[in-house]
Amino acid sequence: MRLGEIGEFGLIGRIAGKVAAGAGVRLGIGDDAAVTETEAGRLLLSTADMLVEGIHFDLSFTDPFRLGRKSLAVNVSDIAAMGGHPRHALLCLAIPADLPVEFLDRFADGVISLAEEFGVTLIGGDTCRSSSGLVISITLHGEQIPARIIPRSGARPGDDLFVTGTVGDSALGLELLRRGERSGHAVERHLNPTPRVSAGLSLAESGMASAMIDVSDGVLADLGHILTGSGVGARIDASLIPLSPYFSQRAPDVAPAPLSLALTGGEDYELLFTAAPGRTAQVETLLAASGVTATRIGAIVAGSDVTVTAADGSLIPPERRGFNHFAP
Amino acid sequence: MRLGEIGEFGLIGRIAGKVAAGAGVRLGIGDDAAVTETEAGRLLLSTADMLVEGIHFDLSFTDPFRLGRKSLAVNVSDIAAMGGHPRHALLCLAIPADLPVEFLDRFADGVISLAEEFGVTLIGGDTCRSSSGLVISITLHGEQIPARIIPRSGARPGDDLFVTGTVGDSALGLELLRRGERSGHAVERHLNPTPRVSAGLSLAESGMASAMIDVSDGVLADLGHILTGSGVGARIDASLIPLSPYFSQRAPDVAPAPLSLALTGGEDYELLFTAAPGRTAQVETLLAASGVTATRIGAIVAGSDVTVTAADGSLIPPERRGFNHFAP
Repeated sequence: MRLGEIGEFGLIGRIAGKVAAGAGVRLGIGDDAAVTETEAGRLLLSTADMLVEGIHFDLSFTDPFRLGRKSLAVNVSDIAAMGGHPRHALLCLAIPADLPVEFLDRFADGVISLAEEFGVTLIGGDTCRSSSGLVISITLHGEQIPARIIPRSGARPGDDLFVTGTVGDSALGLELLRRGERSGHAVERHLNPTPRVSAGLSLAESGMASAMIDVSDGVLADLGHILTGSGVGARIDASLIPLSPYFSQRAPDVAPAPLSLALTGGEDYELLFTAAPGRTAQVETLLAASGVTATRIGAIVAGSDVTVTAADGSLIPPERRGFNHFAP
Repeated sequence: MRLGEIGEFGLIGRIAGKVAAGAGVRLGIGDDAAVTETEAGRLLLSTADMLVEGIHFDLSFTDPFRLGRKSLAVNVSDIAAMGGHPRHALLCLAIPADLPVEFLDRFADGVISLAEEFGVTLIGGDTCRSSSGLVISITLHGEQIPARIIPRSGARPGDDLFVTGTVGDSALGLELLRRGERSGHAVERHLNPTPRVSAGLSLAESGMASAMIDVSDGVLADLGHILTGSGVGARIDASLIPLSPYFSQRAPDVAPAPLSLALTGGEDYELLFTAAPGRTAQVETLLAASGVTATRIGAIVAGSDVTVTAADGSLIPPERRGFNHFAP
């Protein structure tokens, strides 16, 4: 079925029909604006991400269901990185005229499956025609009480630096997709990432993290945002970077420098955070209860430099550049 | 200057540098999510609109400053149509690689000039590369206390139907732009619309409006949303439709049926609303204080039909179709 047959309001109706009633929603899809409650004493967290066909995703690599999940997941990850509870989402789509309605149905199913996993309700948005590829823009609201919000700016010299899970898998997955693979641990992590909401909330509620960000542009690039925001530097022990067994096995096939892929590859959607020194065991235990590992990978230092040390103690020249969206 | 030279974070920094501190903003541009307060006792209103180059705007018709203003104005109009106070905005841009930084500077100036006029603060968003044209996606937050929010669903048989200002000017302006004109009242209304925030707030605070929507798709199409939402029908007296002197003079040059242009042309961003019968003078006086006219153009009736009556009392066949975003 083509979109022209059902029209914009037909499409909105199809999506709205999939959305269950959500907590705090007074008025959902279908008016000039959605109306929601913010719980007393809590602040509103708002984040927005745009995904453009040919830039952020390739329809020959992914399927509409996983694309829908990932489109929301990258926003949920931003709320997780503030230590917040994800709540309500607005979905905007610019849609090529020849995209089948069935694609959009599966895409919406994907958005909603991830939404339901994380307690998010779709409350509004916009749909229109695209003059070329598919463009997805999602705004997500979250909530948290003021004292528990974890900004990028709280890291202090002496703090330990941690990352959840493993890094590099997503970048490896993208490279494997480019080489024709369509499945496996790394491909799945690239196409269907899991935002670390429970881990973020545990850190928020425990007061343990001094600064936090999610790994979307790569460990070094995202660490750079914490350092800039906090006015500090860092040293990373490369031998501590947590890698999956799959990454350790496959990365050497596709990357001349697997460690660089792990440090600069983006889209892992793990949490990178700092905590006061001497709490490594506590942090590990806390996050284990959220179902993820936490690994100490270095420490915050005075100044603004980042040093990366190899297992033998030698310095690795820092590569702090993340993905430049506007590079030629 | 090209975007590749300053990068994504350079661009975000340029935009952030233009934004003044805003009320209720605890943490603005630059973290994983923005952090804002919702005033005690108020609900959050959220709306999102997407504008796509080649679909919603033509860069040979407009300039970046007015494009920036309009991109935010269409969202502000949605908050106005709920009777809300516009507050905080998130701006997402997918940007062609060859778009000069100077264009984006002027665009941001336009967004911020309208934001400042209506008390809106830019708190976040996203920027990325576009694989073809410019895509603009804005989410706007507003606030209002529950009892003052004006949904589409409150119209009752017997209510009078009103519209603010004049309609048809924007559609006329678009037609004149297509014919090569680049200035004049109608062109200006199309490229630089004024959202009716004061009028919406006056109606909200007075409790006078039973249902409201903004005229984005055209009077008949938007009336259709009120009727569907409220489960009612309407009759419109075509001779009462408020037209600007400019429209009356110029519309016959470009449209075989100027009245149809006024009833189905979109993007006027006037408010279309209903009020209990017998309050026409009160409504006119109230809105005059907000600096806009209000004109009674018909009434709500039982059922679901819309009838449009000409000055001589004859029925005009209803044309209820708005712009179909996905029409072939």
